[in-house]
Parts: sequence; structure tokens; C-alpha cells
Amino acid sequence: MNTFGHIFRITTFGESHGEGIGVVIDGCPAGLEIDLDFLASEMKRRKPGQSKITTPRKEKDDLQILSGIFEGKSTGTPLAIFIPNQDQKSGDYSHIATKFRPSHADYTYQQKYGNRDYRGGGRSSARETAARVAAGAIAKLFLKSKGISIQGYVSQVGNIALQKDYSELNFSKYNKNKENIIRCPDEETSKKMIDLIEKVKNEGDTIGGVVSCVLKNVPVGLGEPVFDKLHAELGKAMLSINAVKGFEYGSGFEGVKLKGSEHNDEFYTDSTGKIRTKTNHSGGIQGGISNGEAIYFKVAFKPVATLMQDQESVDTEGNKVTVSGKGRHDPCVVPRAVPIVEAMAALVIADFYLRN
Amino acid sequence: MNTFGHIFRITTFGESHGEGIGVVIDGCPAGLEIDLDFLASEMKRRKPGQSKITTPRKEKDDLQILSGIFEGKSTGTPLAIFIPNQDQKSGDYSHIATKFRPSHADYTYQQKYGNRDYRGGGRSSARETAARVAAGAIAKLFLKSKGISIQGYVSQVGNIALQKDYSELNFSKYNKNKENIIRCPDEETSKKMIDLIEKVKNEGDTIGGVVSCVLKNVPVGLGEPVFDKLHAELGKAMLSINAVKGFEYGSGFEGVKLKGSEHNDEFYTDSTGKIRTKTNHSGGIQGGISNGEAIYFKVAFKPVATLMQDQESVDTEGNKVTVSGKGRHDPCVVPRAVPIVEAMAALVIADFYLRN
Amino acid sequence: MNTFGHIFRITTFGESHGEGIGVVIDGCPAGLEIDLDFLASEMKRRKPGQSKITTPRKEKDDLQILSGIFEGKSTGTPLAIFIPNQDQKSGDYSHIATKFRPSHADYTYQQKYGNRDYRGGGRSSARETAARVAAGAIAKLFLKSKGISIQGYVSQVGNIALQKDYSELNFSKYNKNKENIIRCPDEETSKKMIDLIEKVKNEGDTIGGVVSCVLKNVPVGLGEPVFDKLHAELGKAMLSINAVKGFEYGSGFEGVKLKGSEHNDEFYTDSTGKIRTKTNHSGGIQGGISNGEAIYFKVAFKPVATLMQDQESVDTEGNKVTVSGKGRHDPCVVPRAVPIVEAMAALVIADFYLRN
Amino acid sequence: MNTFGHIFRITTFGESHGEGIGVVIDGCPAGLEIDLDFLASEMKRRKPGQSKITTPRKEKDDLQILSGIFEGKSTGTPLAIFIPNQDQKSGDYSHIATKFRPSHADYTYQQKYGNRDYRGGGRSSARETAARVAAGAIAKLFLKSKGISIQGYVSQVGNIALQKDYSELNFSKYNKNKENIIRCPDEETSKKMIDLIEKVKNEGDTIGGVVSCVLKNVPVGLGEPVFDKLHAELGKAMLSINAVKGFEYGSGFEGVKLKGSEHNDEFYTDSTGKIRTKTNHSGGIQGGISNGEAIYFKVAFKPVATLMQDQESVDTEGNKVTVSGKGRHDPCVVPRAVPIVEAMAALVIADFYLRN
Repeated sequence: MNTFGHIFRITTFGESHGEGIGVVIDGCPAGLEIDLDFLASEMKRRKPGQSKITTPRKEKDDLQILSGIFEGKSTGTPLAIFIPNQDQKSGDYSHIATKFRPSHADYTYQQKYGNRDYRGGGRSSARETAARVAAGAIAKLFLKSKGISIQGYVSQVGNIALQKDYSELNFSKYNKNKENIIRCPDEETSKKMIDLIEKVKNEGDTIGGVVSCVLKNVPVGLGEPVFDKLHAELGKAMLSINAVKGFEYGSGFEGVKLKGSEHNDEFYTDSTGKIRTKTNHSGGIQGGISNGEAIYFKVAFKPVATLMQDQESVDTEGNKVTVSGKGRHDPCVVPRAVPIVEAMAALVIADFYLRN
Repeated sequence: MNTFGHIFRITTFGESHGEGIGVVIDGCPAGLEIDLDFLASEMKRRKPGQSKITTPRKEKDDLQILSGIFEGKSTGTPLAIFIPNQDQKSGDYSHIATKFRPSHADYTYQQKYGNRDYRGGGRSSARETAARVAAGAIAKLFLKSKGISIQGYVSQVGNIALQKDYSELNFSKYNKNKENIIRCPDEETSKKMIDLIEKVKNEGDTIGGVVSCVLKNVPVGLGEPVFDKLHAELGKAMLSINAVKGFEYGSGFEGVKLKGSEHNDEFYTDSTGKIRTKTNHSGGIQGGISNGEAIYFKVAFKPVATLMQDQESVDTEGNKVTVSGKGRHDPCVVPRAVPIVEAMAALVIADFYLRN
Repeated sequence: MNTFGHIFRITTFGESHGEGIGVVIDGCPAGLEIDLDFLASEMKRRKPGQSKITTPRKEKDDLQILSGIFEGKSTGTPLAIFIPNQDQKSGDYSHIATKFRPSHADYTYQQKYGNRDYRGGGRSSARETAARVAAGAIAKLFLKSKGISIQGYVSQVGNIALQKDYSELNFSKYNKNKENIIRCPDEETSKKMIDLIEKVKNEGDTIGGVVSCVLKNVPVGLGEPVFDKLHAELGKAMLSINAVKGFEYGSGFEGVKLKGSEHNDEFYTDSTGKIRTKTNHSGGIQGGISNGEAIYFKVAFKPVATLMQDQESVDTEGNKVTVSGKGRHDPCVVPRAVPIVEAMAALVIADFYLRN
Repeated sequence: MNTFGHIFRITTFGESHGEGIGVVIDGCPAGLEIDLDFLASEMKRRKPGQSKITTPRKEKDDLQILSGIFEGKSTGTPLAIFIPNQDQKSGDYSHIATKFRPSHADYTYQQKYGNRDYRGGGRSSARETAARVAAGAIAKLFLKSKGISIQGYVSQVGNIALQKDYSELNFSKYNKNKENIIRCPDEETSKKMIDLIEKVKNEGDTIGGVVSCVLKNVPVGLGEPVFDKLHAELGKAMLSINAVKGFEYGSGFEGVKLKGSEHNDEFYTDSTGKIRTKTNHSGGIQGGISNGEAIYFKVAFKPVATLMQDQESVDTEGNKVTVSGKGRHDPCVVPRAVPIVEAMAALVIADFYLRN
């Protein structure tokens, strides 16, 4: 099923090598001003070919809004967005039509469906995320109108990890100066990350990374007890992005090493009379429900599976074959993954905001 | 909403200090033999008071099957299970009726609902997981009939981590000799973990941990592309368990440090003609769909928030108060969390099995 | 699937000859006073054996509320209700174990599931409606707290139709004097209906009928455009009741004979400044959304299929057999169907009220 | 919510006076040959301006398939279809911008949403049904591949009712000779119906009607017990079509007059060994599940609310106003409603077929 969300709900469609990619957003409130320039800028952040450390492949992400807008504002009816494909060369992929690329979805799709659209992966292609970013941009506009901000950034590439906590980072400066190509809000670390990516790229290899994300001004009370906890839906949203291997929020896996007396976030009343916590190991969520503190989480991305190297594999008959690297692919997915992580977070928060 | 799953779907109800806890399982196939002894043994694994490192609080988990069974077999109609509460003392909790316990759901529930059932946490209580274990036991019986096995175990307590990969562990020996009280399949590590828990318990403190889980013989093809990827649903299921802070599968967060050439799982054809992978960084899932290899994942649990120590906090009016530790609570949640992790995994796999 | 509704959502379970029948209500708002006497009186209206024109079979409908209530009020968590079966004699049904009763669900269940619970029809039994009435009683309490009333009544039995429009009926008098056994708010017509039912009963035969229902003070704006129109959900709810063959609202099938100039409901502003319609062919719903006028609809029930006569049929092998009437059944279902129609209407309106 | 169906699921979007109308079909099986000529012919049957008894308004229904097709066959991924609007004149509607047209959705939309798209009714416009017909055509292609046929026809206009049962009608002859403009498979009755429509049209008035529908070769076993009975979903589907006031299947409202001994459908084994029923008052559905006999039902349509006459009403301020008839509208909706009824039936049956 290609639907995500309950009240603010999206259904995506389209293939990487068909007519295009699209999304229907059902449940977007009426009267929201749709800033087309913002939509375009979000699409641009996800687009291939934006820098030397991303794939040189070009996509043209010109949005068409097919419905749901009247005089520049949402009408409350379904908002359909279509992004036509351009300059796709199906021929690029013919060399792998009968081979299973290691750590791709080729084998599992073939086994599940009995066939697969080998032209760029069909629906399993990362191009599907363009629809997520478009829908996420609408969700961001909605959240912005409520004062909620979402900020993703790259916090790790290979072994190089940003040694600063989200609370130590100066995003206003980072945004003012525009994002750098690695989308890490620390210049020194950014440089190391970029160097590492260029190095593995020159080896015809790829490398993994981590995207962190911080949500501010999320009101107290979002999330549902029991199964639809706020972080459970955030986790599902992130894990549904291609190449993701893990999700943690607040203290995450490191938190298991702490004692309760170290980990507990004590409450206090601040000078404005607001109840807050002294620390934020909870990551802004307690009992599955937002508590008003910053929500932060991390998402692990594996190294891109398509290499510019020969790899051993088998074909659909089970015969041993060599898969040779061709095409134009990312040496590291995380810079372009930042807007996708943000988009999925926006969709989850918008949905819970309206459910509340 | 208190419903989880699509085809094999559960709805849970009940409070920790009301009449009891229950679950309705809709979509369990007809003709499944319901082994009541197995259900009882699963409930016993989750039950408090089972060893010196768990809470001494007693619960009596006698199951009543209200519907869906005829002559010992499921009929295909909804299977309702009820577990009456016994010996609950509401008085135990009166001392915290107006105080927000640090890192509990007290504050967020109060803000969201305007009131809360302070008697043991109501629906936010871990007692709700008894219903999950009961439903999970039914799912396990179904999966067992298909040859699928699920094995959870404790792989970390505080800083003490099991240094063996799932593939190095001998579960058959471990199960033959019965689980130890920490539920870690390595005697030496188990001893260290138990010592650590006893130490923090004596300090009136608590400690976090990690539960790992391995699923074997899951057929190729479970999971859906795009949003309902197999690991995305597993992640949501795990993150919906109380106290969970993170989820990773396959190579997880460590995998981001690898290069693609190290991380990719090359395919080969084994001596029986079956297509397999040489390594299993993918964790048995590629493109969101099971590939027939072992599925394995890790779940991070924070330290239990209820301490036998005084903590600072505020009351519902925002006044500074001291929360004193009382009652009988677990110093470390992971031993009792093992059957809950297994239960949620069983529910997810049963659902995808039937969706396929 | 045994779930109905979106926000105010019920899941029913249980069989006619098992432990009992039950329902879990998810989404009932917190703070609603649960009037147990009202619940009992609603159950009594549906119960068999209540008069000479219903089946003499007895059922004891003692409700147990398993969860969701604290100090007499709903807590907002799932409300589980269980109604144990009593005095069920499975032996009564052994004579039809291998025969397909005409116009029952025997044949279709056998073909769909490969087996069926022949003891009183299992889930296809009308006993399942006890759970609907229990859940509907909770929904009615909620709607009553919002000033909304629901009134069902029998408007036709066989050829005998009540010749008065809903607007001509005096329900306050009817309710003051208590319902009569046929539940028709017109004494003269009631007498004829009762006579007819007694006549067909003496012939060992059965007869169909129509239940009408009027909803007053439903606020403007309930219902969703496109697929989830208010009358579409009401229609589905009614058609899901056993033995229902048709649903119409407002002018219904008779309305097709009218011209637009006769059928259109002209708007006017009443003395209080409220916009109303002069006529109400629309039945209180325009474009799928309530307009504040009375909502009224009719539900057609076929004659009960179980006769006290011999009928020709086939057995599971396809051999010609005679099905002989045994047991205790209703000669006409509509008097007992009134509370079921009301219950389903209450569930639909409560759900749309909360969705709005 | 603009989504219908469970497995074979559609989401519609678009407005009557925006860019166009569209639908995303999720769950269409892979490998289905998409006959574009058939899609075009179905769209043509719904289109305005096709005969003297329909509106002279023209719409151009050129379909664009945006995704889900590869080499002429469905791929199993979402199938998106877009139908651009052409030659829409918003100016036509300005005279009713602040007036509530009697028996339209103007008033309820205004009250529910605080605003409405007065240009042709926005989403409440019958143009939305173009998306249903497009999706229904895909469903029909799927059902045709399984041998299932769907035949709708006009059985009543005003007082003129077709006096023949579905079993007496010769559809093969009717189809061979092409449908007539009224879509009634009886020449004599057709003539009377057409005369009546022309008469009311000349009076500037409109008239209601009934569409009947017969489904043949539906396999035994479609439909779910309890809430999702086959006829309950069919009923909801039909009642969700604009202007529908009632739904009945099998013996329907007339059946309530019969005794059980007259109404019951006795089983017999036919010469091929197949179990069948002698009569078909059940309408092909027993206990909510198809029994292999023909499924037939009727759908009541009210007279079109837009008249070429002056009508009294109020404006958004509650002031008395006159609504004058303008524009180009149908004097009777049923001829064009036939393909819509068929489309919704096809969507329901395709969904249950895949759920089974």
C-alpha cells in the first residue's frame, strides 16, 4: 500500500522511468498559503547533481499542482502534485536486467512479484522520495504556520562524527549562510566529511552516514498512547526511507549505559511559569507523547549499494555473474537524505497535530 | 487508537488497576491448535516476581479465552482473551497523585487529557504489555506451524555488552538448559549482567539495556515496498513498547562506518540450488522485503524511571516537590522485555505472512 | 473484519454458543457518565422472549464492563463489555449440521470457510447484535449529552404499513406510555400488525417488515463529501444488520416519481433567524452532510428464514433433504430490530460527530 | 477522506473547475492488459452532451495515464489517471455565489467549511464521478479477466417503471444493438421514458429515476460476515453517488410483504452437480456473502435539483432571494448514472475478489 498517515494522509505513485512521480495529499487544512518558491527550493535540496559529492545525474523536478488549490491557497480538498520525469535513459539499466545487484531490492522483488521493473528500480528507486519531499514541503508550510520548525543535518559520515549535541549547534547562523554541500552545521567536521566522501568516490566505493533531526516548538500532547506513540510513528517514517538501518531518539542506544538517576529528566518551573525538564534525555517525548521540549532523533543510512566496482553475484537462473558498476550514483546518500528525513518528520508531526 | 496490525490485527484494552487487561485478535486463521500450556508459559516469562533481578511485585496472569475457539482450535472468528487483575493495591500510588514523576508519562498525559489514572499508570502502565504477550503467543503458534522461529535475548545491560554475533550463539543449547534469569545465551556475560543489576538495585537505582532478536525461516517476500517495509513495521512495533529508545536491524548504526564494498551482501547459489547471501549485513531484509536469511535486530531500553531514591520534580501546580521511591519495581527491564519483543515481532511477521 | 467506525470505533467478538458475546469500544470520549440502568434497558429491548410475538427463547443479557470506566465515568481508554451466554443448548441444532437451510448463511459460509459453526450460526447468528446494542447504548449516552435523539419504530409488517409520516407521529406520548410490543407508535396500526404476526406464527410461517428511524437535533455539518457521505455510512450500517434488504432516506424510492420542482426543499429563515427548509424530502442530509433538519430513513427486513414448516433443500453432499422447523424463533424480526437499528444509527452519528 | 476500498483502493482528486479530475488506483494486480479504447468508451457513456435527453454541456474526457503501466500492462504499482478539464466557464456560476440553491450541497458545505467553491460545486460536483468511471473501467477489465460481467440499466423514470424482472431481459440483444439513449433494455418502455424526460425538460423541470444492475458469474464466497457484508459495501458505494436516495438488493422493499415460505430460496443440485437456488429473492447474497447466483440491486436517484425555473431560497445572510435557472443541466440523471453505478459495483467486487 502506498499510503502514509491518518488525517494528513499521502498516497504516492509513479516510477523512476515512467511518465513521472506524484502524490495526493488528503487532509491538508483549507486556507493554507501554498508558497511555490518554497516547494521548488525543497525539491532542489533533494535533487541529484547538486554538488561534487552527489551523483552527477540530473533530474528536473518541475512540480505541477493538479488540484486542491484556489487563488494560491489550499481548499481542503485533495492536493495532487505531479513531477514529470525527464531525460531518463532506460538503456542505462539493460546490463543488469537479469542480474541481482548485491544489497538491492532486485532479488526480493523478483521473488515476491515474479517480475521487476529493472529500469532504475521502478518503485524501489530513490526517485520515489521526490514525492515525499513535495508532500513534506506542504506539511512544513502547515507546521510553519503553527510555529513549528524542523531542522535536519548530517551528523556522521563513515567514522567521522559531529562531536556536538543538537543544543550546541547554531542553526540560525548555519541557515543564514546557506547550507554547505554536506549539510553539516559545523565547518570543520564538514570539511572532513567531504574529504572522506571524495576519497571513497575516487575508489569507486561508497560510504554510510547518519542524519540527525531537531524539531522545535512542537506543542505538548502530540502522540497517542499504546501503539501510535509519537516516536513509533517517527521511527516507522524514517525506516521507510530507502537505505535506512536504524532509528533512535533522545538518549537512544547510548542511553542504555546510564543509570536511572543519571537519565531521568527532572521537572522544574521556569521563570515564565512553564513546566520544563532540566535535561532532555527523553528527546521531547514521554510515554509516546510530546512534552514541549525539543524532539531530536538520529537515522542511520547504510553505504549506497551501487558501486563503481565489479562485484560477484548470481543471475535469475542462479548462475554466477559479475555485476559491473555503471551509471551515475551517489557516493554517500546522507546530504540528499536530509530533506527527505525532514519531509517525513513533517508529515508525521502534521498528522499528529491534526489528530490531537 | 488501541489497534495494531492489518490482517492479523489486535485491539487491546484494560488498565493496570481496573478489572483486568485483554485483547481481541481479529484475523487469526481457522484451525490453529491453541496450546494453552504454551500461552501460560509465555505469560510466565513476562510476569513480575520471577527472579531476584526483577520486581518482587506479584501478578497472577490467568488467561480466560472468551471467544474464537471451538474444540481446542481457532475458528477464524475474533479470539478474545482476558487476564483479570488480582491483588492490586491502589493505595500504593496515592503519594504520587499530584506529582509528576521524572521521565514518566504523568506530565504529558495530564496535559493531553486533563486528567490521568494515577493508579499504576492506567494504560501507560507496563501491565498493558501482558495483552501483547498473550496475543503474541497466538501469533507464535501460527508462525511455529509455518516453521518460523523467533528468539529474543538480552545482549547488553549498562556497559556490559555480549561480544558475540547472533550467528555465534548456540540457542539450541540455551533453550535445552532453560533460559537463565537474565535471558542472555552466554553464561559468562550473564553473570556480569546479573552482578551489575544487583549492584544498581542495591543503590536504589536502575540501568538500561538492549534486547536482540533473531527470526529464522521467515520466507522470502514478506514486507511491502514504499511505506510498509518489513523493518519499518518491526521498528514501529518495537518503539511502541514502553521505555524503548531505539531500533536497528542488520548492520544498524555500526553499518554507517562501512564502505559499500564491505557492506554489500554478495549473492551465491548454495549446494541445494538456493540463492543466498555470503554475509548478512542486510539483516535478512532488502528493499523492505525479507530475503530468506536470518532477520535480526536490536532494541534499546532506557533505565527504568522509577527509582528507590528521592528526586526533584514539580506538582500539578508547578510547585517544587520531592518524589520519593516507593513500591516494587524492576531495577532493569530487559529480562522481562524479551518475551514482549518476541511477541511484537511475532505479531508483525504473522500479519505480513497473511498479507503476502 | 469485525471492526466498525473510525474515531468512535467498535470491535465485536463472540459466538452464539461459546462463552459469550463482547465488544471493545475505542474512542469513546473521557468523562461520559455510564448509566448502567440505561444499558440494561437497551439490552432488554433487544432480548428474545419479551412478548408473545417474539421468540419464546430466553437469553440472559447481563453486561460485564471489563475496562474503560473509573468512578462511573468513561476514562477515554477502550471500553470493553462482555455478555456471557447462558443456557445455550448446542444439541438443538444437531439436526441441521449437514443441511443447508434455505436463505440462511449455511451454504455461503461452508463454501467460503470450508467449515461452519452450526451451533446457532456462530458469528452469523443474530446474537452478535447484542454487542451492537451494548455499544450503541454507550453511543446513545454520548449523543444524549449533546442533545441528539434517536427514535426507531416499526412502520410496516407485511402489507400493513403505517400511513403516517414521521412528522405526524407523537413520540413523546408514545414514549410516555412505554413502547407497545410491536414498537409502532400508532395503536390502530399496531393492533393490525400484531394480529398479522400472530396469524403467520400460527401457520408456522414468518413475515417481513420495515423499521423507520428519526434523528433529531443532529448538528449541521456531519458527514464527509465524496465517499463517506452521512447517508452512505448510515446505509452501510443498516445493511450490515442481519436480514436487511434495503435502505432509503428522505424521499427514498418514492422520491424518484417526483419532479424537481416538487422535490426541492426551499430554504427560508425562521423567526429565530435560523436557515431551514420548508419541506424535508432531503431527509436532513444534503450533499452527504447533515443540514440540521430531522434525519429519517427506512430499513427493509426480509421474513425470518427459519420456518416451523418442512422445506426442501440439499445437504453438504448435494443430496436432496428436508429441513424441518425446530427451535424457538421469531415470526417477525422487526420489533426486536428497532433497538438494533437505533444502535447502529447512534454509532454512525457518534463517529461523525467526533470526526467533525 | 477521498479514498474507497481496501485492497483494490482508489483515491480521487480534482475539482470541476480546476486543472482536472484524477484518481490513484492502489492494489490493481500486475499483468492486467489496459485496453485504452475500453476506457475511452466508458468515459463516453458518462459524458454530458451525448443525446437530446442529457445536458447539452460538453466535457472532453481525454485520459492521461500517469503511472502504473509498462508495455500496455499494469505493473502492480499505483495506477494514476488524470482527466484535464477543458472549456470550463467559471463565469456561468457567478450568479449563485452567495445564494443557497435548494437541495444542493451549498448550504451544508458553507456551514461545514465556512467557504465553498461555488464554481460548479467543486468536489460536490458530479464531475467527480468521471474519476470513478475511469477507475471502474480498470476494475471492469480485471473482473472481465475473471469472467464476471456487470450490466446496469434504467428501470424507472418518474412513474414509468420497466415491468420486467432482470431474468426476463435479453441483454445480449440489447448490447448487440448498442444501448439506446435512455439505457433501458426494453424498446417500448424506453420510448415512454424518453417522452417523459422530454416533456419535463420542456417545462424547465427535472425527474427522478431508478438504475438497476445485474452482476453475473460472481464466484461464491465474496463478502465478509458482520460489518463488511457484500451488500453493505455495495449499498455504501451506491449511496455515495450524487443524488442517490435509496438502495435495495434482491427482493428489497417489496420482499417485506412476503411470508418466509414464499421468500426462501430452496436449494437444489442442478444437472451439472452444482448447488443452486430455485428462486433468487436473496439477490445472489446470503449472510453477506455471494452464493453464485446473479446479484441484482436497484438504486434510486432523486430529480436533478437544478431547474430552469425560478425558485425561492435565501442567501448566505439569510435574506430571501430568487434562484433563477441557468446553465446546461440534465433533465434526468439516470441515463448517465448507469456507467457510474456499474463503475462503483466493479470497484466493490474487485476489492472483495482480492480480499477473498
